Amino acid sequence: MRKVGIVGIGHVGVTVAHIIVSQGLADELVLIDHNTAKLASEELDLRDSASLLDKHIFIHAGNYNDLADAEVVISALGHIDLITEGGDRFEELRANAPEARQVGADLQHVGFHGVLLVISNPVDVITGIYQKATGLPHNQVIGTGTYLDTARLKRSLADILHLDPRSINGYVLGEHGDSQFAAWSTVNVLGENIDTLAQHYDLNLTQIEQAARIGGFTVFSGKGYTNFAIAHAAVSLLELILSDAHRESIVSHFNIELGSYISSPAVIGREGIVAEFNLPLHDDEKEKLLASAKAIQQKTQHLI
Amino acid sequence: MRKVGIVGIGHVGVTVAHIIVSQGLADELVLIDHNTAKLASEELDLRDSASLLDKHIFIHAGNYNDLADAEVVISALGHIDLITEGGDRFEELRANAPEARQVGADLQHVGFHGVLLVISNPVDVITGIYQKATGLPHNQVIGTGTYLDTARLKRSLADILHLDPRSINGYVLGEHGDSQFAAWSTVNVLGENIDTLAQHYDLNLTQIEQAARIGGFTVFSGKGYTNFAIAHAAVSLLELILSDAHRESIVSHFNIELGSYISSPAVIGREGIVAEFNLPLHDDEKEKLLASAKAIQQKTQHLI
Amino acid sequence: MRKVGIVGIGHVGVTVAHIIVSQGLADELVLIDHNTAKLASEELDLRDSASLLDKHIFIHAGNYNDLADAEVVISALGHIDLITEGGDRFEELRANAPEARQVGADLQHVGFHGVLLVISNPVDVITGIYQKATGLPHNQVIGTGTYLDTARLKRSLADILHLDPRSINGYVLGEHGDSQFAAWSTVNVLGENIDTLAQHYDLNLTQIEQAARIGGFTVFSGKGYTNFAIAHAAVSLLELILSDAHRESIVSHFNIELGSYISSPAVIGREGIVAEFNLPLHDDEKEKLLASAKAIQQKTQHLI
Amino acid sequence: MRKVGIVGIGHVGVTVAHIIVSQGLADELVLIDHNTAKLASEELDLRDSASLLDKHIFIHAGNYNDLADAEVVISALGHIDLITEGGDRFEELRANAPEARQVGADLQHVGFHGVLLVISNPVDVITGIYQKATGLPHNQVIGTGTYLDTARLKRSLADILHLDPRSINGYVLGEHGDSQFAAWSTVNVLGENIDTLAQHYDLNLTQIEQAARIGGFTVFSGKGYTNFAIAHAAVSLLELILSDAHRESIVSHFNIELGSYISSPAVIGREGIVAEFNLPLHDDEKEKLLASAKAIQQKTQHLI
Repeated sequence: MRKVGIVGIGHVGVTVAHIIVSQGLADELVLIDHNTAKLASEELDLRDSASLLDKHIFIHAGNYNDLADAEVVISALGHIDLITEGGDRFEELRANAPEARQVGADLQHVGFHGVLLVISNPVDVITGIYQKATGLPHNQVIGTGTYLDTARLKRSLADILHLDPRSINGYVLGEHGDSQFAAWSTVNVLGENIDTLAQHYDLNLTQIEQAARIGGFTVFSGKGYTNFAIAHAAVSLLELILSDAHRESIVSHFNIELGSYISSPAVIGREGIVAEFNLPLHDDEKEKLLASAKAIQQKTQHLI
Repeated sequence: MRKVGIVGIGHVGVTVAHIIVSQGLADELVLIDHNTAKLASEELDLRDSASLLDKHIFIHAGNYNDLADAEVVISALGHIDLITEGGDRFEELRANAPEARQVGADLQHVGFHGVLLVISNPVDVITGIYQKATGLPHNQVIGTGTYLDTARLKRSLADILHLDPRSINGYVLGEHGDSQFAAWSTVNVLGENIDTLAQHYDLNLTQIEQAARIGGFTVFSGKGYTNFAIAHAAVSLLELILSDAHRESIVSHFNIELGSYISSPAVIGREGIVAEFNLPLHDDEKEKLLASAKAIQQKTQHLI
Repeated sequence: MRKVGIVGIGHVGVTVAHIIVSQGLADELVLIDHNTAKLASEELDLRDSASLLDKHIFIHAGNYNDLADAEVVISALGHIDLITEGGDRFEELRANAPEARQVGADLQHVGFHGVLLVISNPVDVITGIYQKATGLPHNQVIGTGTYLDTARLKRSLADILHLDPRSINGYVLGEHGDSQFAAWSTVNVLGENIDTLAQHYDLNLTQIEQAARIGGFTVFSGKGYTNFAIAHAAVSLLELILSDAHRESIVSHFNIELGSYISSPAVIGREGIVAEFNLPLHDDEKEKLLASAKAIQQKTQHLI
Repeated sequence: MRKVGIVGIGHVGVTVAHIIVSQGLADELVLIDHNTAKLASEELDLRDSASLLDKHIFIHAGNYNDLADAEVVISALGHIDLITEGGDRFEELRANAPEARQVGADLQHVGFHGVLLVISNPVDVITGIYQKATGLPHNQVIGTGTYLDTARLKRSLADILHLDPRSINGYVLGEHGDSQFAAWSTVNVLGENIDTLAQHYDLNLTQIEQAARIGGFTVFSGKGYTNFAIAHAAVSLLELILSDAHRESIVSHFNIELGSYISSPAVIGREGIVAEFNLPLHDDEKEKLLASAKAIQQKTQHLI
């Protein structure tokens, strides 16, 4: 049976829960949150929803003991209230880091041995904290990273080209944050590389890249948080894990060479990262990736 | 092509939009809201979500002209901020009534001739206002009514009986509000009527009925609003309309005898209410239904 | 993880497999059949299909060892070629009975301890044979029984009443065969019982009941087999088991009083039958059920 | 509302119908076939299936008048019995060509103006015949072409590389038949081109290409026909049309330069082919495409 847990039932966590429920992606869904009043309300709202759907799923608020045999636990804890307009995901770090350490320790304590999928920001750092706190192998602790930034890059390009985003190939690599970058050498649309496309359609690549980078803040500015797309990004990864898909995906995972959690494509399956590969990159892209890893490390030095 | 519009992109409206997008229930989805900053953010978040899904749907913010040829328009406008703890859905009336009148007039102006599905509260009253403002036939203007209250009654009973809620038959009739009631004569579980069940399982029927009645406020108390289950209720009705299902459902529709919009089961299809029928009720239930209709009318006298 | 096996990849078995694949209902699907050439072709066709879908599922031909830890095994073995026009499902018995005994023994041998869901005909008898051969508890061995006959009764009534079949309540009870009967006292449409309906719509109940009884042969007569609806019936039950739904359903299960596998409603969950209940029936219906059980036993006396 | 028609309810046509029904992809589905007994049986089996599902769809046998306002008509007519072991799809031509001409004329007669999606073989030729017979613009008449061959190439490669097929990019171009070829310059896996992959994994490209080419016959050899994967290929294209996806896909469409229907990628939407583009190919691939177009024309000269 497919058992999934979610820790942190805020805007993102509850949206992840709702997608899982409405698509019947698990047999049992365990919800954990400090705010027990909100948790009870969300549980009730989701259970009422489930009764209106064709799928059956056992939804309940729980504790860490309930996660001992979960296949996947999703960390959606966060402190969106700490984010200021035009701010940075690192503003959440001081609150999220200690909570992640505690949740990680609790998961280790109950013997959780599945895959831990992290959405909590700054995601590359928090995923690293979780790996250390749980003691799980690196491949079993992964983060959503630039999955959504990549999707935003594709959508921006697709809008300009009057195409469906799923007809665009390519990646945003590096930090899920300021130092991320569009790896243009990986972008391919209708068989054409980005140079040909840029010329043909008079594309402003810097603008498109920036739209992906600040996409989250564009959404944030109007509604005060972001939830739908980031939740779908997490659920997409969840599905690859649960079904042991062995499918390539952009994901934040531990890069031994760079000594950091950072986003680049890998192969996802039941054990999290089931295969890695060297994406051929241009020299300037390799440098940007290195710089992005350093940016992550720099911002987290004070954590050591 | 299936074209659907949503007016009011608050908690409920955007959740309805999200379900439509994630389940691919429409080909084109038009979103309308006064708050253009929030609207733009929600549109972007939903479009980013759609790009991560297998379904294709054209999602865009729009205006009333875009709704002229919509098959269904959903009214999710509301002023949840006017609701006080332990309050009543009529607290929203003074704000929602004039807005519904304006939206109805706008829909009439552009020549909308599809089905108008109303979630806005107090739903029985607002649905009536919409019918008058649009000038549409009564069958084409319907409200979610006690659809969700009925679901909550079933879930409460199901929890006690260790059953799936879909194994419970029965209805909550009347106002989506205080004067609603469980029509126990319509409740049937595993072939047994409620008297046998109540005896066998020592059920406290008053408590179960009250749990359904205040279910919305239970959810509200912990999260400050309700969205998932009410959105699924609306989407369930939407699907019956779009697919011309001719399926029986509880719904708020105009009751000629009682002279009011009020909930009882009817047959739903492409034209909204495609058939009506007289649900056999006990005398005390008929009186409760009449009293509920009066309660709705009394609270709305000042609107005349 | 959800692991499902199918034994017998004929018209019905492969359609069950296809539905499971296209709806992503399992993580691993094991296919078993004597005809290894056909099996390889079906496996390839299904794997090619899966690669075109959004869901990931591990599909492979296998042997009984692969079923040791399956959650559900579906028996779809059969000899449709033995059925003659206007014939009877018992014509398959002489071929299916020994095969079921062997498959049951093989399942016991590898230690299969999940739920065995039987479609093979005559289904009430074959399900009983499987229970004995596997040594599994009665609740873990169930058959599709009159699930489809019930659906056909509802659809026939729905066509006459211009309603969706899901708005009809009621059951066909007894043997999945000649001695089955519509339990009219359980039929309820829009709150009305069958007597009122019959009068109101001038229904020919005998004809409607007979349409359900011979529905399979009506389909058979034009295409030489039946597959879609019976496969969906089996998949509906499969979903209830996999998701531990605790949902009421008509199903062939062991009736202690009648000493036979026979169809009546029960509550379905992870362990197969998770609760039983006494459906209130009219006296003449009780007699028909008894007679149907006797009819099953009589036809199988020579098996002892 | 989404209205779809299928002409030819054999193995493939009915499987297409079944997928449409079980996934709720249309609101109305019209089935047409000469064999009225089989047609009635399939209609009944599908309608019984639909009643067991959560989606509502109006399924009925019909005639060409019913297709006048269909959005998409799918041609699945065929004479699989004319195919010999190790044979060629052109063996069906003498039977399928006159039937396609007649169906095309019938569609023109009733004023059908949607998209015609052709599965009937030899698909490149039959699609051309349909375009002429209906008088529809070239972009509105398309064929499944090498959609499935491309999927088979990806799956073969994926099996060797222990990857999900959806992680493989690339195309099989040309005739859906002997003269097709893997356009290796378009193949890209985990960022690597085929030369690097071939060396790294010691791939036998000729063998992999041949596996895709004869995949249909491999499936055919064991079961006597192919249905699931080709039906999913057609449904994938159907979904792109119905939802106006503007998504790139391999498809058989009219190539002005080559003067023939032949497969290469194009952008699919509501009007069929909504955009074309020049896939950059190596010189030897351009020659192969030219040769494939000539092979198609040569085999059809006698039709002029």
